[in-house]
Formats: sequence, C-alpha cells, structure tokens
Amino acid sequence: MTVQPILIDGQWREADAIDTFRAEDPATCQPLPDEYPVSSWADCDAALTAAADAFREMRRLPGERLAAFLEQFAAEIELRRDLLVRVANLETGLPASPRLGDVELPRTTGQLRQAAAAAREGSWSQPTIDTGAGIRACFEPLGPVCVFGPNNFPFAFGSISGGDFAAAIAAGNPVIAKANPSHPGTTRIFAEAADQARQASGLPTGAIGLLYRTSHADGERLISDPRVGATGYTGSRTAGLKLKAAADAAGKPIYLELSSVNPVVILPGAIRERGEALAAEFTTSCLMGSGQFCTNPGLVALLAGDATEQFIGLLTGRFGSAPIGTLLSKGVQSGLNASVGELSRAGAEVLVGGTAGGGRGYSFANTLLRVTGQQFLAASEALQTEAFGNVSLLVVAADLDQLCGVLDRMEGNLTGCIYSDTAGSDDDCYDRVAAALRPRVGRLLNDKMPTGVAVSPAMNHGGPYPATGHPGFTAVGIPASLRRFAMLASYDNVRPHRLPACLQDKNPNGTMWRSIDGRWTQEDVVSSPKS
Amino acid sequence: MTVQPILIDGQWREADAIDTFRAEDPATCQPLPDEYPVSSWADCDAALTAAADAFREMRRLPGERLAAFLEQFAAEIELRRDLLVRVANLETGLPASPRLGDVELPRTTGQLRQAAAAAREGSWSQPTIDTGAGIRACFEPLGPVCVFGPNNFPFAFGSISGGDFAAAIAAGNPVIAKANPSHPGTTRIFAEAADQARQASGLPTGAIGLLYRTSHADGERLISDPRVGATGYTGSRTAGLKLKAAADAAGKPIYLELSSVNPVVILPGAIRERGEALAAEFTTSCLMGSGQFCTNPGLVALLAGDATEQFIGLLTGRFGSAPIGTLLSKGVQSGLNASVGELSRAGAEVLVGGTAGGGRGYSFANTLLRVTGQQFLAASEALQTEAFGNVSLLVVAADLDQLCGVLDRMEGNLTGCIYSDTAGSDDDCYDRVAAALRPRVGRLLNDKMPTGVAVSPAMNHGGPYPATGHPGFTAVGIPASLRRFAMLASYDNVRPHRLPACLQDKNPNGTMWRSIDGRWTQEDVVSSPKS
Repeated sequence: MTVQPILIDGQWREADAIDTFRAEDPATCQPLPDEYPVSSWADCDAALTAAADAFREMRRLPGERLAAFLEQFAAEIELRRDLLVRVANLETGLPASPRLGDVELPRTTGQLRQAAAAAREGSWSQPTIDTGAGIRACFEPLGPVCVFGPNNFPFAFGSISGGDFAAAIAAGNPVIAKANPSHPGTTRIFAEAADQARQASGLPTGAIGLLYRTSHADGERLISDPRVGATGYTGSRTAGLKLKAAADAAGKPIYLELSSVNPVVILPGAIRERGEALAAEFTTSCLMGSGQFCTNPGLVALLAGDATEQFIGLLTGRFGSAPIGTLLSKGVQSGLNASVGELSRAGAEVLVGGTAGGGRGYSFANTLLRVTGQQFLAASEALQTEAFGNVSLLVVAADLDQLCGVLDRMEGNLTGCIYSDTAGSDDDCYDRVAAALRPRVGRLLNDKMPTGVAVSPAMNHGGPYPATGHPGFTAVGIPASLRRFAMLASYDNVRPHRLPACLQDKNPNGTMWRSIDGRWTQEDVVSSPKS
Repeated sequence: MTVQPILIDGQWREADAIDTFRAEDPATCQPLPDEYPVSSWADCDAALTAAADAFREMRRLPGERLAAFLEQFAAEIELRRDLLVRVANLETGLPASPRLGDVELPRTTGQLRQAAAAAREGSWSQPTIDTGAGIRACFEPLGPVCVFGPNNFPFAFGSISGGDFAAAIAAGNPVIAKANPSHPGTTRIFAEAADQARQASGLPTGAIGLLYRTSHADGERLISDPRVGATGYTGSRTAGLKLKAAADAAGKPIYLELSSVNPVVILPGAIRERGEALAAEFTTSCLMGSGQFCTNPGLVALLAGDATEQFIGLLTGRFGSAPIGTLLSKGVQSGLNASVGELSRAGAEVLVGGTAGGGRGYSFANTLLRVTGQQFLAASEALQTEAFGNVSLLVVAADLDQLCGVLDRMEGNLTGCIYSDTAGSDDDCYDRVAAALRPRVGRLLNDKMPTGVAVSPAMNHGGPYPATGHPGFTAVGIPASLRRFAMLASYDNVRPHRLPACLQDKNPNGTMWRSIDGRWTQEDVVSSPKS
C-alpha cells in the first residue's frame, strides 16, 4: 500500500515519513484503508521555504487575486460535495445529512466567499490616514500561517478549508495546513480542491501546503520557525498550550481556540414560565452532534427550588431517552470517560448516563451530572473539567449570592448564556449574573443556546484565557478574524506613489471604508496635506 | 529619614518594605535624599485587591467620567509643572528646557487629553452591529492593568502619566503603576496629581495604585495574578522578556516595547544630492537626548562608494565635535560600555568615541562604529546588539544584493527609514529595500529620522518581535493604543435595554463611529431587526 503524498510548493510529493498512520471509522471502530505519512522535519522545512517564497509575492497581490482564489476554491469544493460528505462521514461518524452536506458544507463555502468579499473590498485592513501628520497605517499580512484544525468540524474549521484558512489567505498569507489526524482523507480532498483553485487563479505555488502529521517536537519547531508569521489552532487544551508555549517563546503570535464549558444560567422565572420548552432546547443543544461543539453548554447554573427540581427531572428524562450518537473517535470516548470520572471524584452525582457505549461504535451515554453550589465552590477547578461530548454538569446554587460566587470562579469561556423570564421577575438577578459573567466570556447570550456560531461581523468566537490565548480576537466573523493574521504597518512621510493602494489618496475601489482624519468614509482623501 | 509611602486604594500608606532605595542624580553621580520602598508581595496583593474592586465599578462607567478624570489630571500636572521639571531634571539629567518642560510635558498632557476625548467619544471600542443576525459587539475593558514605565521618558511614558496609563484608563481599566526606579520622585508627583484628580472626578479609590519597586519574582507574580487584565511594559529586552514569559504562562496579555536598532538606509542618490544636510539630520537625531530614545537610529545601512566614504567622514566629524550629554543613569553608561564592547568583538571598528565619560556625570563619548555588509552577514545577531544611547553602527554593503541581505537578517524593529534622492535615481533600489524592510518594522519612514513619534491615529509605535511582543498593536496613537487593554465582547440576542449604551440602537452621543451592517456611521440604527 502506498503512503499518501503531501502537498508542498504546488507538488504532491512523497513525504519524508518517520511513520505512517490510518484514520478509523468511529462507527465500526475499524481502521480505514488509506495510509498517511507522519512527516519529518525535512517536510516541515520544505513547506516553510515554499511558503516564505510565496509570501514575498503574495503580500503584494491585490485583494482581487486572493478573492478569485477563494471563490474558485468554494466552487471546487461544491464540485466535490458528495465525495467530501461520504469521506467525512466515514472518518468522523457525523451524519451526512443534514449535518455535513446541508449545514457544514454550505457554511464552509459561505465563509470562503465572505472572506473573498472581504479581501476584494479591503476594509478589513482598517486603513487609517492622518493627513495633517502625513502618517498612514493599515493592517498588512504577516507571513506564512500554520493552521491546525480540530476533529469536530472537518469542513468549517478544517485546516485547509475552514475559518482560519480563509482568514489567513484573505489577509494575504500563505497557509501550511496540518491535517487533523482523525480525518486525513477529508483534508486531502480539500487540499486537492485548493490546489486546483490555486492553479486556476495563479497564486504562487507555495501559497498552500499540507502535512498530515508531525512529531510533537517538530510541530512546536514548525510554529516557532523564523519563517512563520502566526499560527491558528483549534483543539484540545493540552496540545494547544504546548504549542502556545513554543510560539510564545519564539515571539510568534498564536491564536488558540481551546476548551470551554460555556456556562448557561437559567433563572427561576424562566423555568416557571417555560420550563418544558427550555428543557427541550437545552437537550437539543447539548446533544447535537453528540455534544462535540466548542460551544457545547457543558455547565448549567440554577437556583435551588421546587421548580428547579422539576426542571432537572425533565432534563434527566430527556437525556435518558434521547438517541445516543456516534463519537468522533476513540479518543473522544476515552476523554469522556476520564472527564466524567474527574467530575465524579470532585463530588458530582451522575443523574443519568455516565458510562461509555450505548450507541453505534464509539459512544457514550447522554450524561447529566449534578453538584451543589457549595460543592462547586469547594472544587471549582476540577468541576470545570471539560467533558467534550454529550455531557453537562448542573450546578444548583442555594441562592443568588452563591450563584454569583460560582460564576466568579469561572475560567475564561467562549460563551455564557442567561435565560430569564419575559415578564421581568428575573431582571434584578439578571443584572448581577450578567456582571459576573460578562468579563469571563467572549459572547454573552440571552434566551438562546450557544451552539450556533453565526459568521457575523459582530460574532466573537473567542474569549478570555484559557478559552483562547488572547481576549481581543475572534476565530469566526469576517472581517475581524482576518486581523489575527496581520501586522500593523505605519507609513510616515512615505512618498504618495510608494504607499500601498489602500493608503493612497484615491480610494482604490470606491467601496473600501477608511478612517481619514478620524472620520470613516468611502471617499477619496480630498484635503491636501498641510504643509 | 522616613521612607516614602505608596498609593493603594486611595490612601498613601506605609509600604511593607523588604528593602529601600534612592535615586541618583546622574549629573553628579550622587544619591538623592529621598528613600523609597521595595514593596513585598503584601503590597502587590493589596494593590491588586483594590484594583479588582475598582474595576467592577469602573468597567461600567460612561466614558465621560473617565474623560473627566484624565482632563483633571492633565490640569493637575500643569499646576505642578515647575516641580515636575525640576525633580525630573535632577533624577534623569534630561534638560529642563526645552526637553522636559516644553516638549515632554505638553506631550504628556496632550496625550491625556486625547485619551479623554477618545473615552468620551467612544469610537475606540469599534461598536459593530449586525441587525440581521441580532448580534452586536464592541471592545470592553479588560481588568486592572500593570504599567511598567521606562527610564527615558519620565513624563510621556511614565508609569502613572504616560501613554500606557492614559490608554488603560481611557479604556476603563484601573492601573497599578510600577515606578521606574531611576525617577521615583517624578513618579510620586504624578501619582499625587493623579490622586487629586481621582478624588475630584470621583473614580473609585482603587482606580490608581503606585508601587515603587518589587523583587523580580514579585513583579512576575503581580502580572500573572488572576486579578490582572493585562500589562504594559516599556524598557530593556532582558527584563521585558522575563515578564513576557510569566505573563504568557498565565495567559495574560502583555504589551512590550523593547529594544530596537531602527535601521536607516541612505541610498547613494540621496547622499550625492544632500549628503551635508543628511549628516546634520542624522547626527541631531542620533544624539538628541544622548540617543536615549526607543526609536534612536542605531544602525545605518549604506552602499559602498566614494560619496559614502565622504559622508562617513562628515558623520565622524560631527559626532566627534558634538557636545556629550549626560546619560540617564550609571546603568545606561555601563550598558553602552558593554554594547560597544560586544559590537567591537563582533568585528565593528570604532570610528569615533567608544569610551565612557567626556560629559557631565554619567556619560559616553558620541560613538560611531563601522562594519562591512559581509561582516554583518557573518555576525548578524551580535551586530544587532542595541547600544541604548549616543551610539550608531554603520554597515557599508558592497552592493544592493548585500544590502538587502543585511536587511533580510534584521530582527523586528520599531522603525525603518529609507532616504532616497528626489530625482528618482534611487527608485529601483528603493523598491527592493522597502520590500525587505517593510515586514520587519512597525513604521516605515521616507526621508525622515525615526526619533519623532507623533501621537497620531496612524502611528505605529510597535513592530514585530522582539521590538514588541505582538505586531498588531501600537503603544502610541489614539485610539488604537486603547484597544490593547480591551477584550472583544459580543452580545448575541441580548435584549435591547440590557446592551451597553454604545450598542443600543440610538447612538449614545451622536458622534460615535459604529459599523452597522458593514457601514461605518454616526447615525442611529434605523432598520429594525429582521424577524
């Protein structure tokens, strides 16, 4: 059996493999046939050289050229829709429909087209012009970006198809993609589509590279290399923090999207008003995709009371009767085992579920655990262990003070939700709860579960550490996500014809928003510089 | 003699001192009378608790309240102008006039007033509204900010008076200032002025804290503390990178402004056209303030030739005959000794100067060194040693290829300058030189020395590592500098009346710029959300 080639400098070439691996079908727990290489440092080095060469050309390309590639890529993906869905379903166990084919694939091509529009229009770079001082600035691409994609969104967060890829390219950077080893075949198809689009649109050969896997040491060396601009990583906290340490030590920006328990506070009035509906809504959100979402609601904070007990009864019933899905991998199953064990040892009572199995292939019973607020306060670190999957922990606080104390102990999270009644009886509680939650989460929601992450310019799919590595950036939402992969570049007294197009007096396309002397406008610079 | 008190929670209180220290008058090399405490962890802890308490109130204050404080503070500084200039002159040796009294002090109050205007107007937070998706986002304050000021700008970059302080407060964060130990008396006067202004404007007591000094271990613990939002540091690379490592490990943002040699490329046509004038301009820039600027031009890249030799002769003459200033401290003098030694050992020839002394008090001869491009390429790391002071290294490249090779080896820098002739004979060279320099510097200049750092919205006083810790942020320039001390906060489906004022339909002051459905505007939200 031949080992699959890697993509470097526009060539599919044999890897300098130190080992090989295969993906597994999580529904059958059997290995899939294709064999993929674990690359040596020589492969990383070649990918870096190609990307650095490509960057010299790419950083000066007009946004239109980047947009053409991204749009062509979206079209190439659509041509391969059925194949992608079939392979991703095999490799991840995620349902072909609606999930992969009808939700995630359109989201992925939609993101690529939004990124294309942002690259073409150019406002993402926030051109800022001070005519009086003769200084002009904008964000410019940073250099080759390494993208490590997660296991749970093989399309929309894929290393060579997802949001980080789209943002890095749209900002003008080459990408070195490191496949998630749980779905290498899916990644390969995307890379083939991207390579076709690259050829058709004339981007430099080193604009896109694909490695399937490296040793941990080589991965850390890769993202610390002087030729690298930045890294985007979505995945587990343990691996992410190791990469962060390596990138930090080298002074390289790294954008992480790590674990998050995404606290949901359901206030008593809301339970009284619409407990049944909330139980259904929460169960759907928590068990969707077997709970394998970054924004899965993994912790629910409640105030003690009879209505709350009834509500917990409803949830327990729903969790017990809901179908049990297939997990992404053996690792996810063993992770759930470990996390549920950790939560139990910290004092959580299993209300329903708690054991592996029950579904097709790798699976875990839909699980609810419960602790009191007092227990949480006594073991708040252990009780924030993320259980990545179809598991949630209910924290029942004795009173509002204790509830706010629980929230004050929360680590940084991607999201925080507050449900309150519509009549206003929860409003006083809301204010205190929101004050505690707001600084700890990237996105605050009302009366809505966190699992939908709209690709909106106002989205924040980010949050304080350890949900991410920096609270000022979002992984989802265009144009903000592009600015992660950019440097601030100021031009002081630079002769007009030498300025980048976005900073010249004439607005390059008439639609780019620029801040000219403190005023955002799509107009040209009209005042001549003061002399 | 009593030890000076520290400022914590609105009180001037006796420090829990583990040691004491005095500043020195660098012009006489004698200690100054006042004794200052080295604080224990208990002082840090108290400052953190006060700041964390203040933050809960401060983060919800309208910008108007922050602006009132900043403006009152500027007025209090002006009331103390003569005292500040006298004490700073004693502690730093910087000239009272024009430098301290007529340049740095007005810059400082100007920055505070610009920050006040930004806080009042609110556009800094980039409110972003997606009416269709019902999602709104803005930047919000992050939490207590620790500010470590440098030795070289006791006013404009002072820990409790400078750009980081102004930006952190304007964004809504309390500040814990750590004085630079070379000018504690100056810092004390600023803290007294700030405390008066705080009382007058009603900010919470913990909004401002002042410590003079801590152990290194306590400093690292301080910036890693869970109560901290972020840190701003300006100073030496060695100390800064230790703080960065501590902050990174704790997942706390830290914004560094470290060493930089600020390469200046003078192309042959410019030398032919205006060599005399350029020699004067460079000498003034390099020796101003005894060269103790972050943006001091510490490396000049030239192309070999007769005109270049003549030019070097002019520079050497000017450096030899210019008056020798007083340095900020014994540490700066010994640092210059060490750096010049390092450069010499790496092969640089001393053209003029090279030895300590020659001026009043701590001083160092105005120094020029010289290497060939080939030498530089062979020892590029050692030859980028920053000599913080009145020293510059000339790199004479054999040809344009070698010159670009030299620039390709440059570390990240704050600035890079290119001088070219006005007739266009340098234009081909310019393009290659600019392509090499642009990604390595935060600010690219034409025909202008880097030492002026205008407080402009288009300024970038930042740059790639190791000039700073992240290439996307600037320490100077309002409003961008405020966003360093902020987190992205998204509101998804949050009920309208619960949104922060800047995200409600009505523009809170009619002047705030907001991005509404992709359009920057000062208008209210007019379209009702899609249902």
